[in-house]
Amino acid sequence: MTEKKEPLFNKIALVGIGLIGSSLARATRKNGLAKEITACARSQSTRDTAMRLGLVDAVYETPAEAVVDADLVILCTPVSTYDDLACAMAPALKEGAIVTDVGSVKESVIRDVGPHLPDGVHFVPGHPIAGTEHSGPEAGFAELFEGRWCILTPVPGTNSKALDRITDYWAAMGSMVETMTAHHHDKVLAITSHLPHLIAYTIVGTATDLEETQQADVVKFSAGGFRDFTRIAASDPIMWRDVFLNNREAVLEMLQRFSEDLSVLQRAVRWGEGDVLEDRFRKTRDIRRGIVDAHQAGTFDAREPDSPQD
Amino acid sequence: MTEKKEPLFNKIALVGIGLIGSSLARATRKNGLAKEITACARSQSTRDTAMRLGLVDAVYETPAEAVVDADLVILCTPVSTYDDLACAMAPALKEGAIVTDVGSVKESVIRDVGPHLPDGVHFVPGHPIAGTEHSGPEAGFAELFEGRWCILTPVPGTNSKALDRITDYWAAMGSMVETMTAHHHDKVLAITSHLPHLIAYTIVGTATDLEETQQADVVKFSAGGFRDFTRIAASDPIMWRDVFLNNREAVLEMLQRFSEDLSVLQRAVRWGEGDVLEDRFRKTRDIRRGIVDAHQAGTFDAREPDSPQD
Repeated sequence: MTEKKEPLFNKIALVGIGLIGSSLARATRKNGLAKEITACARSQSTRDTAMRLGLVDAVYETPAEAVVDADLVILCTPVSTYDDLACAMAPALKEGAIVTDVGSVKESVIRDVGPHLPDGVHFVPGHPIAGTEHSGPEAGFAELFEGRWCILTPVPGTNSKALDRITDYWAAMGSMVETMTAHHHDKVLAITSHLPHLIAYTIVGTATDLEETQQADVVKFSAGGFRDFTRIAASDPIMWRDVFLNNREAVLEMLQRFSEDLSVLQRAVRWGEGDVLEDRFRKTRDIRRGIVDAHQAGTFDAREPDSPQD
Repeated sequence: MTEKKEPLFNKIALVGIGLIGSSLARATRKNGLAKEITACARSQSTRDTAMRLGLVDAVYETPAEAVVDADLVILCTPVSTYDDLACAMAPALKEGAIVTDVGSVKESVIRDVGPHLPDGVHFVPGHPIAGTEHSGPEAGFAELFEGRWCILTPVPGTNSKALDRITDYWAAMGSMVETMTAHHHDKVLAITSHLPHLIAYTIVGTATDLEETQQADVVKFSAGGFRDFTRIAASDPIMWRDVFLNNREAVLEMLQRFSEDLSVLQRAVRWGEGDVLEDRFRKTRDIRRGIVDAHQAGTFDAREPDSPQD
């Protein structure tokens, strides 16, 4: 965690410089993990912001320009762009370069990126379980990945040195690194992240359709639980559109299970079956304890007066 | 906010001394709002805890004992107990006493409590929009109500002096007080609090039914969004059972709207309709901004690295 260390990489290229990309730039700098950082961004304003904030040494319009001579290339854009980006940057990738990403889905990423990469370039798909509901280069911060999990989903035959270097990179930024198959990742994240976001987007949408008089009070009295959903539902629309388009089967399966379980509670409410409700409500406490024990609960929880009870 | 003020009440009786009751005891003490505080609790262990923590001056087993000579009586138990409690304490209430409560539903409370109260006793139903997922007398703290809304739902003809005194009481504990009809309250809270809790309980329940291998990872990688739901779903089961049993119509109506909206998104995912998803996801950002502008978002939000994005 000091500038004195010999950098892990000579040159890191960030394809995309939004919340995650800019946080990677900051964390890479803070921990002295690269001698040089470049980035590319489609829009002039984003490129200007990246330079103004001093996030990178150079910023380009195209990935082909940004990845020249890079030892490490990190895709930090919505996953729907990966196919074109990988195709565009492939010819410019140097022999032995490592390509990784931060996408929230992994099977589709392997499908879209893998085929474009030339022999001698190592692909290590990754996904940091970290973020905020804020977007853009100004929203990033160097500590975003500290104490967070980063999941790597290498395909069979992935170069083990490349996997080790990516593991070291995330560990150096304070992350805990776990390796699993892309298939398992997509199934687990469907329930821990994708479905919660779909539900949060839905209920906030339901609230926005209420009569105006009620809507003002929904905002006013949101601390009763709704507020937590609005934060989740404020996440980047494009990124989340792409998540659902690219993890369809797993999301639909979890959504089906959820709908069945919700119907059971709905029926219990309609028929006044208090014992059914109480029984279900008790069960859920255990998994919460597991999360607290696993230190995934966040230190703010116990003190948070906004945690909905009423 | 100082002990030097003349107390608003001579004697406050807390019927129930859990998270909310004990927080009221602490806040009443801290702000010097009563000369004497009594409480009642069914279980010996709760009574022992209340005395050990020095929360009250005296604690009794029955409400009839606790409310003797009280100027203010506050019901702080699950709403299903209100009917019996009101019936039991009614004969012991002194002329001119004010009875209020902290229940999350209000129409059923007026239905259950009102008829038991003798003439000359003033009933002012209330609901502080504050709480945590923790329960019991040890979970309370004096600052729980600071900067939070407290909704009062007086019935037509409620004694205006009594209403003013309850308003002053909550304001003295740092709350912002709003008055509305019980019917409007129950409708608004159905979407801002009750439905979010029902959904959170459901999805956490869905996760607990997963295969064991997946379940371990659900706990591990909960920071992706699921974790926020588990906190909500850790709230008191009895209290929430009673909420759903006593706000059935409003909850079922909001649940119906939610289910319809979820079906639209489910179909969009199944058929890969990215434009539909993106359009919905964009809309929800505005209501979030409204909540942030209304200062209901909590100062931790912007800094919270756990806010799910991935």
